[in-house]
Amino acid sequence: MPHDFSQAERDAVYRAIRERRDIRSHFLPHPVPEEVIQRLLCAAHHGPSVGFMQPWDFIVIRDAAIRSEVHGSFEAANRAAAERYAGEQRELYGNLKLAGILDAPLNLCVTCDRERTRGSGLGRQTDPMTDLYSTACAVQNLWLAARAESVGVGWVSILDHARLREILGIPESIVIVAYLCVGYVSEFPEKPELESRGWESREQLDRLIHFDRW
Amino acid sequence: MPHDFSQAERDAVYRAIRERRDIRSHFLPHPVPEEVIQRLLCAAHHGPSVGFMQPWDFIVIRDAAIRSEVHGSFEAANRAAAERYAGEQRELYGNLKLAGILDAPLNLCVTCDRERTRGSGLGRQTDPMTDLYSTACAVQNLWLAARAESVGVGWVSILDHARLREILGIPESIVIVAYLCVGYVSEFPEKPELESRGWESREQLDRLIHFDRW
Repeated sequence: MPHDFSQAERDAVYRAIRERRDIRSHFLPHPVPEEVIQRLLCAAHHGPSVGFMQPWDFIVIRDAAIRSEVHGSFEAANRAAAERYAGEQRELYGNLKLAGILDAPLNLCVTCDRERTRGSGLGRQTDPMTDLYSTACAVQNLWLAARAESVGVGWVSILDHARLREILGIPESIVIVAYLCVGYVSEFPEKPELESRGWESREQLDRLIHFDRW
Repeated sequence: MPHDFSQAERDAVYRAIRERRDIRSHFLPHPVPEEVIQRLLCAAHHGPSVGFMQPWDFIVIRDAAIRSEVHGSFEAANRAAAERYAGEQRELYGNLKLAGILDAPLNLCVTCDRERTRGSGLGRQTDPMTDLYSTACAVQNLWLAARAESVGVGWVSILDHARLREILGIPESIVIVAYLCVGYVSEFPEKPELESRGWESREQLDRLIHFDRW
């Protein structure tokens, strides 16, 4: 059928899925060209959205002073998060690099406008969370496109959203979904860093599959 | 660099992103082979997850009686949803096909276990929503892999989750994130159906991009 992918095309899609990494280290300082940024944002914009709502916005952050403020917020949140752990786990946590806000030349903030009227609420009455899920799917599109462009992406969730909102001037009605560090990298690690550093192991897939009922 | 994709591989990833569709019509009845289902679930399982939590489970539903019960729940929810619209929009809504629960040979329910201890809460203290976002990203991986396999996927959000939980025996502590209709298709429409049927148009990307601050 004309809509079929060739075996090589199929392999490439699976390669992107398999080799995508959450990048915190290994960022190179040289800028991501404007046309690459546009392709990545276009990939995100082609994410699925409930009722074709397209609830997302993208803030492209290159300014060093702004990134420095965000980095300060990350450091405070990360110190507070570390308190939660004790003993060996605390030590391991302290040695993990969890964000590349200053190392990556580009940061991206992806938001969800829950009041956007596009789509007229189609599909949102039974599960109001779907606009947030749509935005997360857009992020995943961008992440896979970035892998194919040899651009690393790291999702930083250890941030005080109230402070981030203030730094970036994001209106109260807008939900911050993702804060991403983006840039070329010296390497894509073979395994997730949290796996290779011994923080957590990969679950066996067959333990997560149910048939017909839970 | 050895980690670089060739131009052809990059094009294939962008093709999957561009040609992925939310499929409600055009399903063919023949089964999706076991090994294809496994590849799709493996793609989902390679989604990013906060703290490497891997909070997802997958229910593979082929049983016709169960799908029929779910379809009943969809019909009731869809009738209630239609009430929200009036005039021309109501008529258009009534003519949209919004789910292929019975036409598709396979349904998949993707859930999030918010209490899973994997990852020890890393990355979740500042934004507790991230486990749900991880699960949505896993769905997007599956969706793109499916497109590369010529398998159509439709996300049905118009469902009463309490009723779906009852039908599938899903524990109270588990969040239902996505209910997907999955199967080979006669065609992948060139545009989203909600666009071609005039429900909603695609937003201009440049209107959604901000620089350095909102």
